[in-house]
Amino acid sequence: MKKYKIAIVGASGFTGSELARLLARHPQVEITAITSETHTGKLFSDLHPQFFGILDMSLVSAESVSNSEVDIIFLALPHKISMEYAAKWKNLSAKIIDLSGDFRLSSPEVYKDWYLKEHTFPEGFKNAVYGLPELFADRIAKASLVANPGCYPTASILALAPLFAEGVVESDSVIIDAKSGLTGAGIKASEATHFSNVNENFKAYGIGVHRHTIEIEEQLSALGHFNSTIQFTPHLLPVDRGILVTAYATLKNPVKQNQLDEIYQKFYRGKTFVRLRNSPPGIKDVRGSHYCDIFPTWDERTQRVIIISAIDNLLKGAASQAVHNMNLMLGMEESIGLNQIPLRP
Amino acid sequence: MKKYKIAIVGASGFTGSELARLLARHPQVEITAITSETHTGKLFSDLHPQFFGILDMSLVSAESVSNSEVDIIFLALPHKISMEYAAKWKNLSAKIIDLSGDFRLSSPEVYKDWYLKEHTFPEGFKNAVYGLPELFADRIAKASLVANPGCYPTASILALAPLFAEGVVESDSVIIDAKSGLTGAGIKASEATHFSNVNENFKAYGIGVHRHTIEIEEQLSALGHFNSTIQFTPHLLPVDRGILVTAYATLKNPVKQNQLDEIYQKFYRGKTFVRLRNSPPGIKDVRGSHYCDIFPTWDERTQRVIIISAIDNLLKGAASQAVHNMNLMLGMEESIGLNQIPLRP
Amino acid sequence: MKKYKIAIVGASGFTGSELARLLARHPQVEITAITSETHTGKLFSDLHPQFFGILDMSLVSAESVSNSEVDIIFLALPHKISMEYAAKWKNLSAKIIDLSGDFRLSSPEVYKDWYLKEHTFPEGFKNAVYGLPELFADRIAKASLVANPGCYPTASILALAPLFAEGVVESDSVIIDAKSGLTGAGIKASEATHFSNVNENFKAYGIGVHRHTIEIEEQLSALGHFNSTIQFTPHLLPVDRGILVTAYATLKNPVKQNQLDEIYQKFYRGKTFVRLRNSPPGIKDVRGSHYCDIFPTWDERTQRVIIISAIDNLLKGAASQAVHNMNLMLGMEESIGLNQIPLRP
Amino acid sequence: MKKYKIAIVGASGFTGSELARLLARHPQVEITAITSETHTGKLFSDLHPQFFGILDMSLVSAESVSNSEVDIIFLALPHKISMEYAAKWKNLSAKIIDLSGDFRLSSPEVYKDWYLKEHTFPEGFKNAVYGLPELFADRIAKASLVANPGCYPTASILALAPLFAEGVVESDSVIIDAKSGLTGAGIKASEATHFSNVNENFKAYGIGVHRHTIEIEEQLSALGHFNSTIQFTPHLLPVDRGILVTAYATLKNPVKQNQLDEIYQKFYRGKTFVRLRNSPPGIKDVRGSHYCDIFPTWDERTQRVIIISAIDNLLKGAASQAVHNMNLMLGMEESIGLNQIPLRP
Repeated sequence: MKKYKIAIVGASGFTGSELARLLARHPQVEITAITSETHTGKLFSDLHPQFFGILDMSLVSAESVSNSEVDIIFLALPHKISMEYAAKWKNLSAKIIDLSGDFRLSSPEVYKDWYLKEHTFPEGFKNAVYGLPELFADRIAKASLVANPGCYPTASILALAPLFAEGVVESDSVIIDAKSGLTGAGIKASEATHFSNVNENFKAYGIGVHRHTIEIEEQLSALGHFNSTIQFTPHLLPVDRGILVTAYATLKNPVKQNQLDEIYQKFYRGKTFVRLRNSPPGIKDVRGSHYCDIFPTWDERTQRVIIISAIDNLLKGAASQAVHNMNLMLGMEESIGLNQIPLRP
Repeated sequence: MKKYKIAIVGASGFTGSELARLLARHPQVEITAITSETHTGKLFSDLHPQFFGILDMSLVSAESVSNSEVDIIFLALPHKISMEYAAKWKNLSAKIIDLSGDFRLSSPEVYKDWYLKEHTFPEGFKNAVYGLPELFADRIAKASLVANPGCYPTASILALAPLFAEGVVESDSVIIDAKSGLTGAGIKASEATHFSNVNENFKAYGIGVHRHTIEIEEQLSALGHFNSTIQFTPHLLPVDRGILVTAYATLKNPVKQNQLDEIYQKFYRGKTFVRLRNSPPGIKDVRGSHYCDIFPTWDERTQRVIIISAIDNLLKGAASQAVHNMNLMLGMEESIGLNQIPLRP
Repeated sequence: MKKYKIAIVGASGFTGSELARLLARHPQVEITAITSETHTGKLFSDLHPQFFGILDMSLVSAESVSNSEVDIIFLALPHKISMEYAAKWKNLSAKIIDLSGDFRLSSPEVYKDWYLKEHTFPEGFKNAVYGLPELFADRIAKASLVANPGCYPTASILALAPLFAEGVVESDSVIIDAKSGLTGAGIKASEATHFSNVNENFKAYGIGVHRHTIEIEEQLSALGHFNSTIQFTPHLLPVDRGILVTAYATLKNPVKQNQLDEIYQKFYRGKTFVRLRNSPPGIKDVRGSHYCDIFPTWDERTQRVIIISAIDNLLKGAASQAVHNMNLMLGMEESIGLNQIPLRP
Repeated sequence: MKKYKIAIVGASGFTGSELARLLARHPQVEITAITSETHTGKLFSDLHPQFFGILDMSLVSAESVSNSEVDIIFLALPHKISMEYAAKWKNLSAKIIDLSGDFRLSSPEVYKDWYLKEHTFPEGFKNAVYGLPELFADRIAKASLVANPGCYPTASILALAPLFAEGVVESDSVIIDAKSGLTGAGIKASEATHFSNVNENFKAYGIGVHRHTIEIEEQLSALGHFNSTIQFTPHLLPVDRGILVTAYATLKNPVKQNQLDEIYQKFYRGKTFVRLRNSPPGIKDVRGSHYCDIFPTWDERTQRVIIISAIDNLLKGAASQAVHNMNLMLGMEESIGLNQIPLRP
């Protein structure tokens, strides 16, 4: 069987290592290059010891990708750097899946407003497809540049999409109180990632200004065909992995619980990786897997909808979502290589 | 110096052990009895090994309290059992501080609606004073029965009280997304408290039905002089101690950040244990202390107020709050024995 | 392709759920029954929510296994109960893999000395093969009853086996200081498994009397052809998964580091799941995988060998080891279904 | 009452913040200066938010200490830097308590062997007293320079001192398997202190070469009046605070458990902060306190002594031990300001 050739650009972060973990076991692809500019020549397993004896390939410079024939390039890079590679490689035959935030928004202008930086590859926006397979599988299948969604947006949009698509939600009523494991903050050592500041601690950050706010707002507004201002508050959990979103919304008209359930069941019919739960999911129910668990509930007393959603931020919120997009882009069955059962306990 | 005599009724739980920890070092009281019906005769330090060699007194039956002369009785018991002791000891000269939920609400009827049990000492309600010192210090000083507030209500009410007292908050707009450390679930071994269900996990529970909802609602409604329905969602954090509340509210009129700050500064002037922070507090900033840290912020984009508050659920949310009440009830300086600096890291 | 039929007896514990996780994705077997006497009729995913929508099969009584045609029966039961099923099913054509401690020792007498219970199926001992594939692959392949090793013994024996097999270790010099994640204590709610007793805590237990001592002692003594008394001290780590063993031994003659390395390399040549590391492994390097990482070091100053080994206690220490044994017993390639890359972070 | 004047040199680390926490509540001292060269002018609470509103004093340069009249100077600095201040201030009237490793060993030569650096203040050694109050209270009381012991050495020496003082231990038989919370690694952000490398992980480090080895070896050898080579292996626990030592030793002659107990009871009679436990202590039993819990046990089967000891590495292993030394040096009652009951849960 022919295997597709894959390059992972950016080896040092969590996203890169999780992509490698999934792709090394994917039956229809082979990893032909993993790149790092700062660690060129080292082994991949030197950076990530869990791969010792499993994936010991030498890291190469991204330059080498320019000249190789690969089918898919994953950009596992910080934003701003990602766009430079997307620009540089725009004429390659390889399709690109960008895991940074550089092509997730609607325009360079919006990008600048929220990322506070000038976008250096504005033409990229017109080709970029937002890579949330539950919403855009068809477009993703034809895309040459996919913007892999942010972790918070994945959990938030999936929690609320049925209400927006159905047109039942009251404009500007949505509040998203989100909580993420520490890996969402990245692999870089800093005061914020020091064990003693995270362990046994919990706090909010980026109140009112987090960049994922606009990503959520744009996608939900598009689904609902109206502009909706979203309140989004992220918090840092003292765990490695997992995002739990608690979303609140007012509806245009009161519903019954079973009507609410129907809206969600209809919307997610046939979506393998969304599990509509009958009790509130915890983040450990999805850890190590590609699932998004969702629990919508109608509070009759307060006349409000509360939706809980849970994902693994490094997988459905990043790496496995990227592999899902790859499957679609290469015309394979969408769930190949993604059937890991959650690791619990 | 004369020392007041104290009894702790209920030795086995976290509340009992934390009361003992504080009272054993309080300069003006002495613990004359710690009771347990199931562990009578054992040493207190047999149940809580941290007290080995420090507080090894034998546990006695609650009966012995009936006949002793104590100044304050702390009821560190489950609700429903607590009310029985309050009834039984109503004619003792000792003042009672009840750490359960039995006397926190406005009436036996409301109690029954939310606790799903008939109250067996309905007369208790007319004497009971809600023991939140920042709001009711004068009444507490004269009370014979103090209902020590719940942990979530303490953090929630303190977060929102200034807005309700000032009359600026929009009715029914309040959403409280609360997160608590595991000790809030009590010392009893159960599936819910098993390490593997808590560690690396995070989930919501009691959505729409948690008993602390009505406690918060009643207190805030009374402060605001109007009925306000509150949305309250508790979550379980994989940490020992700490509650973080993220509260959202719409105001009747937009404000500026400095106006919001003034409302809070005015309300909490002279309140030693409320710290108005200039950045979002984490639960570790207050761990092991009697402080409640509060950070109110105005989101100009969404035209909403977001308030973060943090407490140690076992202290400001239970034991140290009870000691604070005791200090007031015995006419002592209110902060005696409560000046522990937060234990961080 | 024909698939082998598998029954898992005992659904409620961690071992049962981890077996199900591995077997549900094993390409050459199908799970035909999962049993539970206390939860008969419930869904497997009711007990273990991570399987929601993935493995929702109804739990059946173990009785039904008696009458079905299965190839392998996994006993995921407490010791003492396990032996009863082994006795009852001794004439079935199915081969049995027992994950309890009931058939790991050399005789009913030794069993009684350490488990403090009379063994009710003493004949079982003569057929039982100790299921450590790195040592006994040939015997396992022919066995009808395999005693799956304990978690501590797996990590301890693999750490020390090369030294005993080579005959270089000084009798009675071995000290094993072992540390295990909490899942080793089982799924039952108890004071010992309560989050607040485990989290941020660490302690030793079973000093000098832990049952795994004799299991390690018997296996190493047999390998070395002499009786060796082993010092074994287990400790409880505040993590879900993982065992780290720090073993100390005096050798009959001093060695050089490279000689020590050669002893280990020779012994583990061709053993896929033992990774000889060049720096001390952490438990997270093997989490979620079947690997045993080993790091032997010679301390020239103290003239002692120190060996570090790390496994996932639920996998190489239980479920994946059982699957490895199954592969051997059914004549399949030994690593099928076991190639999970460690989940880190 | 006159209060002694105290300076803390080095504000940014855990040791500095814990010293401040204890000294700010010590009834007989006042903190007159806290220094930092990199954060001069900032508030102490800017660095350590738990002190917000409690200890907001401005940080000053260490220069200012040179000219002020203080009674005690605490050096809460990295080793190598500490010795420079000790040299510079050798003629001040203030007594110095150095919390680094710079004066703990017997000579500049030994220092160089283990710290791999030339000592720049070799004369300091002749005045320096090893600040372990249980062993050297008299000498500490008269010292002008106290070398506060390392965290591992404190737990290790206290675990083994009675056996060495009694002369019963077999030379070179001691193995110390030690485990420390992450704060032992310091406040600096690094790969080693990144949450994702610590959480749910556990590993050994510094095998055979850790600097605390020689500190333990020298002290125990001196107590036993013979040279004893010690095996010492430290490990990193995924917790904030706490050290647990599991020490193994062979005795010259077998003992009975009660004889062993007597040796320990005799040695620690009157030592307030050593608690001889009757079951294995966990690190949470001493968290937030100055206690060292010790549990010695005789293993009749292996003819070996196993001793467990537990301390809070930041307190008995650093800051509270320094305060204990200060109390002795200033002629105060030794336990003043140190009676915190362990914080558990």
